[in-house]
Amino acid sequence: MKPFKSLIPLEKALKTMEKSLKPIDRTESISIQKSLGRVLSEDVIAEIDVPPFDRAAMDGYAVRAEDTYGADNFEPKILRKIDEIYAGEVSDKIVHKGECIQISTGCKMPSGSDAVMMVESTDQIGAEVKMFKPVYPKENVSPMGEDIATGSIVLKQGEVLSPSKIGALAALGIQKINVYEKPWVAIIPTGDEIADLGSELKEGQVYDINSYTLSSIVEENGGAPIKFEIVPDANESIRVAVKNSLEYDLIAFSGGSSVGERDILHEVIQELGTILFHGVQIKPGKPTLCGIVDKKLVFGIPGYPTACLSNGYRFLLPAVRKIARLPPKRFTTIKARISRRVVSSLGRSQFLTIKLEGQVAHPVFKESGAITSMADADGYVDIPADVDLIEAGDEVEVILLI
Amino acid sequence: MKPFKSLIPLEKALKTMEKSLKPIDRTESISIQKSLGRVLSEDVIAEIDVPPFDRAAMDGYAVRAEDTYGADNFEPKILRKIDEIYAGEVSDKIVHKGECIQISTGCKMPSGSDAVMMVESTDQIGAEVKMFKPVYPKENVSPMGEDIATGSIVLKQGEVLSPSKIGALAALGIQKINVYEKPWVAIIPTGDEIADLGSELKEGQVYDINSYTLSSIVEENGGAPIKFEIVPDANESIRVAVKNSLEYDLIAFSGGSSVGERDILHEVIQELGTILFHGVQIKPGKPTLCGIVDKKLVFGIPGYPTACLSNGYRFLLPAVRKIARLPPKRFTTIKARISRRVVSSLGRSQFLTIKLEGQVAHPVFKESGAITSMADADGYVDIPADVDLIEAGDEVEVILLI
Repeated sequence: MKPFKSLIPLEKALKTMEKSLKPIDRTESISIQKSLGRVLSEDVIAEIDVPPFDRAAMDGYAVRAEDTYGADNFEPKILRKIDEIYAGEVSDKIVHKGECIQISTGCKMPSGSDAVMMVESTDQIGAEVKMFKPVYPKENVSPMGEDIATGSIVLKQGEVLSPSKIGALAALGIQKINVYEKPWVAIIPTGDEIADLGSELKEGQVYDINSYTLSSIVEENGGAPIKFEIVPDANESIRVAVKNSLEYDLIAFSGGSSVGERDILHEVIQELGTILFHGVQIKPGKPTLCGIVDKKLVFGIPGYPTACLSNGYRFLLPAVRKIARLPPKRFTTIKARISRRVVSSLGRSQFLTIKLEGQVAHPVFKESGAITSMADADGYVDIPADVDLIEAGDEVEVILLI
Repeated sequence: MKPFKSLIPLEKALKTMEKSLKPIDRTESISIQKSLGRVLSEDVIAEIDVPPFDRAAMDGYAVRAEDTYGADNFEPKILRKIDEIYAGEVSDKIVHKGECIQISTGCKMPSGSDAVMMVESTDQIGAEVKMFKPVYPKENVSPMGEDIATGSIVLKQGEVLSPSKIGALAALGIQKINVYEKPWVAIIPTGDEIADLGSELKEGQVYDINSYTLSSIVEENGGAPIKFEIVPDANESIRVAVKNSLEYDLIAFSGGSSVGERDILHEVIQELGTILFHGVQIKPGKPTLCGIVDKKLVFGIPGYPTACLSNGYRFLLPAVRKIARLPPKRFTTIKARISRRVVSSLGRSQFLTIKLEGQVAHPVFKESGAITSMADADGYVDIPADVDLIEAGDEVEVILLI
């Protein structure tokens, strides 16, 4: 059993981690109906015009604009209606001088016409339509390609697909698109004291919590979690698990709650690759390890459930998003007054879990071994390493996790 | 063709809508691995203690606290080590007076011991362990049930499952839980001018956009979209579609871009149920219809893609969330300066789409028929009905949609 030699600051740990992350390059073709939140792997160039024809932007009459010049309420221009078309219909008639065609919004403009007179400015009696105002050419017409022109770049590589961007793809008649694959993230629980759900607890065992919490964070942030079987705390088993995980894009071990156990993963990574850091100035979660094996980032996250989960938010979340090519997560924060004095450790960034009650922030951290330290929380206050005391009533910024 | 008789204000429309929405009652049993973001349909009561035994919270030695009283650096107490246990191991020895057992964090406390002496405060030579400070009873021990006690309510009906709440379920060994079903939302595109993706556009047709954008909003907000085939603009077809949709929890028709077409859905709903409102003081999207048939809310959303989508955000989104029992969506907002003067219609709440460039908000609204009015936007400014002008450089609050 040996203590850590030195701890690195959180910001430095995050920078070191980020420099070693490579955004995913593998792509796949998927249906636009399954594409919400996915990241485009190529520019989308329009192969058709939207709208694909000049179309009426109003209900009314397709006219030759010049036929309406000079019209007003006292001396309306009178045009002869030669056809009427509703949504989806096309007129095969041509609008000649003195003529008009009744038209619905969205219809293709008939040949010869160049503007739409709004129905509100007209009065139809039989086939004669009085026009009470003039329209200028192109008025109330959406020209072909106005929305999207053939050849233009509609969406760019790297854009995250939202409802409206999916709408732009639909407008072009596109059914399948190329996106980046979701990164596969190996989630590897370790520890002889851990039992998987569905098994009977043996004396001295607790259920595996971390596989489920870390997998949820991965899933929530654009990754695909791959849950491994529980790995015993033995050098050979950990070595095999590391090797088996290298086909994935990111590897997160959890567990190894004691100093002795932590050393196994450290040893294995040192042997197979490089340690980037081991021990971070954070609380809880200090014994966090990060290394590289075969260009893959490997995390060793402490096994205590709240320490593991806070590390999941601090390290795994930004790592998954960067590999997935998603922008950094925008957490909602709200200001509140803390309900009691909190003493923090100077030199450690503290992840203090909070339950909100109106504008009051109640610390709910019990201990890093208690999952309820997180499950009862609405969010957390990130207490910087250089702050060692928050007085009751002080304003804090709560980062919401729900 | 007839104009609307009267428009109701947005806030009134939303209140009217909400009063008619019934949160879902159907439940299903699902694996906790599929439960992220789902809503619990019953309280979860702990059937075991977590931890299931008194456990060591530190690496060190399990001792009888009283054996350490009076210890200090100059006169350490010396205890005899009778066993050592690592994670997952249990000792069958009993700690008698003057004895200790080396123990790892997370281990079950051996019989006879009542505290853990941190390894840092000890020095072991052979079987003799010097203790340089005293510990009090229960020190560095997490008592059985400290995290979760048998019989306590761990999670309540109505809670939304987050990573940490899923962790609390795992801690209890729970694999399946009862949650509310996702509401089924019928998305029904109408209009003879609309063609589905994969078909060739006939003259005068455009592709169906709204089914895809509205489905995405439903999916993003905890609902399950059911996309209908495109329905022709005819009374009988619309009537059949309404009847077929009534097995779902919420119904959204899109399309009917002209006044004439809008009347078909209005007529059908009036005949089969009740109109709640038709025509809202918003821009775009004024001709929005909301009715009730067989206790199901039916929306008629205008067919123009941006009008449809902004209505999707304004009406469909809160409706789906309420039925799904999810809390109102928390949109992120940021303050920015608008890049040009915007004239709005007095008496209409405007959904003005915005592209952000640093702290500058560029309006990107072209027209409600253009999907790029939304697809090019990062968010929107909600211009209240009583504001008719925003000057270039004015500060606006942009509600982010990406």
